Amino acid sequence: MEIHMSSNSFGSHITITTYGESHGRSIGVILDGVEAGIPIDLDRVQHELDRRRPGQSSMTTARNESDTVSVESGIFEGRTLGTPIAMIIQNSDQHSSDYRAIADVQRPGHADRGYDEKYGFRDHRGGGRSSGRETAARVAAGAIARQLLERTGITITAYTIEAAGIPCTRIAIDEIEQNSLRAPDNEAASRMEQQVLAAVAQGDSCGGIVECVCEQVPAGLGDPVFKKLDALLSQAVMSIGAVKGIEFGEGFRAARLLGSQNNDTYSEQGWTNHAGGVLGGISTGQPIIFRCAVKPTPSISRTQRTRTASGEVRDIEIHGRHDPCICPRIVPVIEAMAALTIWMPGICSSGG
Amino acid sequence: MEIHMSSNSFGSHITITTYGESHGRSIGVILDGVEAGIPIDLDRVQHELDRRRPGQSSMTTARNESDTVSVESGIFEGRTLGTPIAMIIQNSDQHSSDYRAIADVQRPGHADRGYDEKYGFRDHRGGGRSSGRETAARVAAGAIARQLLERTGITITAYTIEAAGIPCTRIAIDEIEQNSLRAPDNEAASRMEQQVLAAVAQGDSCGGIVECVCEQVPAGLGDPVFKKLDALLSQAVMSIGAVKGIEFGEGFRAARLLGSQNNDTYSEQGWTNHAGGVLGGISTGQPIIFRCAVKPTPSISRTQRTRTASGEVRDIEIHGRHDPCICPRIVPVIEAMAALTIWMPGICSSGG
Amino acid sequence: MEIHMSSNSFGSHITITTYGESHGRSIGVILDGVEAGIPIDLDRVQHELDRRRPGQSSMTTARNESDTVSVESGIFEGRTLGTPIAMIIQNSDQHSSDYRAIADVQRPGHADRGYDEKYGFRDHRGGGRSSGRETAARVAAGAIARQLLERTGITITAYTIEAAGIPCTRIAIDEIEQNSLRAPDNEAASRMEQQVLAAVAQGDSCGGIVECVCEQVPAGLGDPVFKKLDALLSQAVMSIGAVKGIEFGEGFRAARLLGSQNNDTYSEQGWTNHAGGVLGGISTGQPIIFRCAVKPTPSISRTQRTRTASGEVRDIEIHGRHDPCICPRIVPVIEAMAALTIWMPGICSSGG
Amino acid sequence: MEIHMSSNSFGSHITITTYGESHGRSIGVILDGVEAGIPIDLDRVQHELDRRRPGQSSMTTARNESDTVSVESGIFEGRTLGTPIAMIIQNSDQHSSDYRAIADVQRPGHADRGYDEKYGFRDHRGGGRSSGRETAARVAAGAIARQLLERTGITITAYTIEAAGIPCTRIAIDEIEQNSLRAPDNEAASRMEQQVLAAVAQGDSCGGIVECVCEQVPAGLGDPVFKKLDALLSQAVMSIGAVKGIEFGEGFRAARLLGSQNNDTYSEQGWTNHAGGVLGGISTGQPIIFRCAVKPTPSISRTQRTRTASGEVRDIEIHGRHDPCICPRIVPVIEAMAALTIWMPGICSSGG
Repeated sequence: MEIHMSSNSFGSHITITTYGESHGRSIGVILDGVEAGIPIDLDRVQHELDRRRPGQSSMTTARNESDTVSVESGIFEGRTLGTPIAMIIQNSDQHSSDYRAIADVQRPGHADRGYDEKYGFRDHRGGGRSSGRETAARVAAGAIARQLLERTGITITAYTIEAAGIPCTRIAIDEIEQNSLRAPDNEAASRMEQQVLAAVAQGDSCGGIVECVCEQVPAGLGDPVFKKLDALLSQAVMSIGAVKGIEFGEGFRAARLLGSQNNDTYSEQGWTNHAGGVLGGISTGQPIIFRCAVKPTPSISRTQRTRTASGEVRDIEIHGRHDPCICPRIVPVIEAMAALTIWMPGICSSGG
Repeated sequence: MEIHMSSNSFGSHITITTYGESHGRSIGVILDGVEAGIPIDLDRVQHELDRRRPGQSSMTTARNESDTVSVESGIFEGRTLGTPIAMIIQNSDQHSSDYRAIADVQRPGHADRGYDEKYGFRDHRGGGRSSGRETAARVAAGAIARQLLERTGITITAYTIEAAGIPCTRIAIDEIEQNSLRAPDNEAASRMEQQVLAAVAQGDSCGGIVECVCEQVPAGLGDPVFKKLDALLSQAVMSIGAVKGIEFGEGFRAARLLGSQNNDTYSEQGWTNHAGGVLGGISTGQPIIFRCAVKPTPSISRTQRTRTASGEVRDIEIHGRHDPCICPRIVPVIEAMAALTIWMPGICSSGG
Repeated sequence: MEIHMSSNSFGSHITITTYGESHGRSIGVILDGVEAGIPIDLDRVQHELDRRRPGQSSMTTARNESDTVSVESGIFEGRTLGTPIAMIIQNSDQHSSDYRAIADVQRPGHADRGYDEKYGFRDHRGGGRSSGRETAARVAAGAIARQLLERTGITITAYTIEAAGIPCTRIAIDEIEQNSLRAPDNEAASRMEQQVLAAVAQGDSCGGIVECVCEQVPAGLGDPVFKKLDALLSQAVMSIGAVKGIEFGEGFRAARLLGSQNNDTYSEQGWTNHAGGVLGGISTGQPIIFRCAVKPTPSISRTQRTRTASGEVRDIEIHGRHDPCICPRIVPVIEAMAALTIWMPGICSSGG
Repeated sequence: MEIHMSSNSFGSHITITTYGESHGRSIGVILDGVEAGIPIDLDRVQHELDRRRPGQSSMTTARNESDTVSVESGIFEGRTLGTPIAMIIQNSDQHSSDYRAIADVQRPGHADRGYDEKYGFRDHRGGGRSSGRETAARVAAGAIARQLLERTGITITAYTIEAAGIPCTRIAIDEIEQNSLRAPDNEAASRMEQQVLAAVAQGDSCGGIVECVCEQVPAGLGDPVFKKLDALLSQAVMSIGAVKGIEFGEGFRAARLLGSQNNDTYSEQGWTNHAGGVLGGISTGQPIIFRCAVKPTPSISRTQRTRTASGEVRDIEIHGRHDPCICPRIVPVIEAMAALTIWMPGICSSGG
């Protein structure tokens, strides 16, 4: 027997609730708990959606959805009302028929198996609710969080630090938006791109690692036990489909350090930051730094062996338009989830 | 301005709420949402607490707390009532005076900085609420979750897969409780122990990596968006103080694989399990496998430079009784948090 | 200092989240937690909205909004997907300019004072978020709850038991939809209507009492402490703007009874039902019966003395189109909130 | 099939979680979300418990429980730590054997029927979890809320406005603690007492009406839709076992008023307060006034006909020590629940 529960909301103070299937009528989000009277730049919301949308480069799917956001409520004469902000994005450019042939097949690396077991009934078109398209709703909400955070000086920047096994050799923030991988190193990005395109030519796909830096976060955010700031950020980021791991500061490397190497100590230059800006679940005032493992896109055109919901073994080749490497499009989603998690009233007050 | 919110509860269906400072009168937990009529083995609860308690070996602190659990409610004539199960553990063997000299100092690698910023007032004795002692309450609750899960065949096993930079070379489950590291490889454990003791001799400490395997978890658990099973497990495990990273299945290694290598495919032998038992946030029916990075214990006797809450620079040497490597004691805590997260009604019904 | 929190959701298992201002672009609801695979009759949803919408009779405002619902997600090929069901109702027929003259005035009996204090900024057009229009979103969600409840035999029926001081003298369920008051007594309804129209002629309005009966609710619903079924129903119903009181079974009359009169006892005819179907917060299996006090509509054309947000004393006459007695339109809202509260998984399973 | 869910917590920002059966080892509460650094008067907590405890007068049960509170955590050197405050009250003076004879019987007017259906297993001793004893935990938590509210000037006063059908004829606050009914009218209280004792002499019990006034509550508290302040207060108060109805301001009387009579208008003397201090779910700044219907105590010694869980018809006479009228002991419980509901950060800050 399966228990069904409300699970499409995130947050306890400020909350987002998203809805929508990939090929349904629309997707959207209700952002609740925002203070009244704050000016909102809606162009900024559209800008973040444009960063996430498909069709931007050789690294992203050729689908061309305009992803135009419509604000239905909660903003009046350019300012927040303190009431729920509902934002809707119509679905379009749906090649639903692409999916008909594989409606019953459990695509390798996808959520199909779990959905079949859990629900016994799914919208197979474009992945339905399990599609990455759902994250557009998060980006719209996150774009409001980000501009409120920025009013207090907090900035959040994510970038591809490694893709297809090729790491960046430097962090040049101003190069991030200059290349198709959103890597802070144009030269490394160029080699990543070649490597990814070589994989695509073989009907394959690549993964990578995205790093996120949150600066000017005040000390004292997060709670000491279950709502540790790094625990909440982990839930937030791990709730993005393609992410398979997360680490803060030294992360897995800390397992091999001595206490004296990993502890943050104080000197005239201030504190070291091996912890990645969170100690005991509470922000230290230093930059919050985390990295996420992004798996290679599961939809590939190479032949894979799988089966159907009813147990029939099948070979499958997934054609259609898929991202060879999802890293550049996941960057704004990670930023959005980080912003929504860090955003707490008081640090974002209108007088901030 | 700081927002204060209820944050000492975990779970939405079945919930635990913990309380207690390290050197307060007691610590405890209320476990709420458990079905009525289920027989509970309280010896099993005490057994799990004994696995976590200090004073077990050269790897753990010499403190000697008996950690005897008292069940205050919710169990009547050996069976659950469906009402909240409150469990209390008295604090004892408190060397509170050990901490007096460093009451005002922000210990490197500890939560003191965040607490000073957030609360402006803290119980400095033994770390107060930020102490690892709080996890005893989680282990008590988890011990009830585990026995209910086991009624349906689900087992959860964690172990130290690497410590002080030394990895296990094999996984022999029956050796886990035979060595001081809780490693599934007695021979590797012996070398880990030597390495940790060498660090201790230098006034230092070591970290490691703990792996957790959840078997016989039915397919279909977890929810598709924010309550993905791996996202909830990440929050659960990252909420343990010493954990700095988590990864599922191939984890960070997936970032360097091709889609065709990382995707799980089907053959006569069944599905491969690169995903670690969760796809799209929903369990696949295969073993759930994750690994956590455990940082070296921050309390070390080597001199470290730090400062006080009021900004005075200070050298500190932390004496007292601390774990040279927390891995063996964190193993039952990780098992408890995994059990509490996976435990869902329906898979645990009395008729299960 | 004001704390802002997410507060537009109701429910913990199955949840509704509503959005929308009276004269904004649209209003809507996300219904989350519904089981997959259940057939939904969307005509039924529209039917319930039609019962609530304005312009039905002399008892309701002359506004003429079609209130056509659009289902954006969560239903595929006529059945639930187990994903969030988003429903949107476009706003139309807005005479926003009617409100310009009183934008700054705190209308007597309305929420304007509280909004001005809480938010310092409000959408004055038609009451903005405080408008009863928000309840259309609840009715849409409730219409889905009701049809799932009905699959298990549970029915929910509300009606006007008294209006303008005139009580019904009998309960004839089949007469409820035959008169403009939704009273189960056509003859009494006729006298109520005359009384209300007489008040309208004086520029005034009337209130009443609505009773709600939930039949075939199984015994055992509700939880013993804070989530008592009657406590949750009270929150649900008291969250409807015009409701000022609620009572179950004997209600306030119980205060004057002896224990031996008020206790429910057992005989061959079964149990008596003085309790109104809930004892100790848990349903008894008998009909759940509650009554709510509905205040007279605050918008009246008689001159009233009030003031503006800035403290200026003003006389106000509220013209425009308002309900002389809100009872008949609140009936479907109360039914919806009762259905959403009672609806719990297990009693509504697809095999139910 | 029954769903089991965590339900022993109340509140979303500041939360209380209670545990304990009437005749178990102890009862208690965890109060979470309290700001750090606030001085707490623990004598005040004990004082409120003393007001609720049995054995105070002829109106209350002869049981004599000392109800001594032990604070286990969250308060250090007399001030809050910002961590959970756990408070425990040992159970004592339990005449558990009184209940053996009726262990299987469903007592009229009690929760036994619902428990039998819901859980199929209950602690019959003294009502177990359904006992009014659970409210002692609420009173302890409420006593902390009250003193924090009082730091900002907010006071909460409840009293018996009617008992056994006899109403007070005046409200003299200083007389409340001078009589056995906690009525603000010593003369009426004397007649109430006679009437109640006459019922007791017949083996019966009486109910009444309790009124609660919250003064100096700032305007702007409460949220406009589901978390309306009056809706939350209704859940809070209706979650007390003996309460069968609640009304605000004019309450049920508003159903018979005209809009021009019920609307609050402004004059030089300020606003009228027909609404009872809440409009549109948000506090207006005027006194919040509500009344609750308290049913007669269900445990009576008169013979009543009932049945057992297995369906056997039985006559029952409930002996033991029960309150002839619960009104005076429910007064501090209602005050506690009102305080916990109104208590919101910002109005209670340490600098308040």
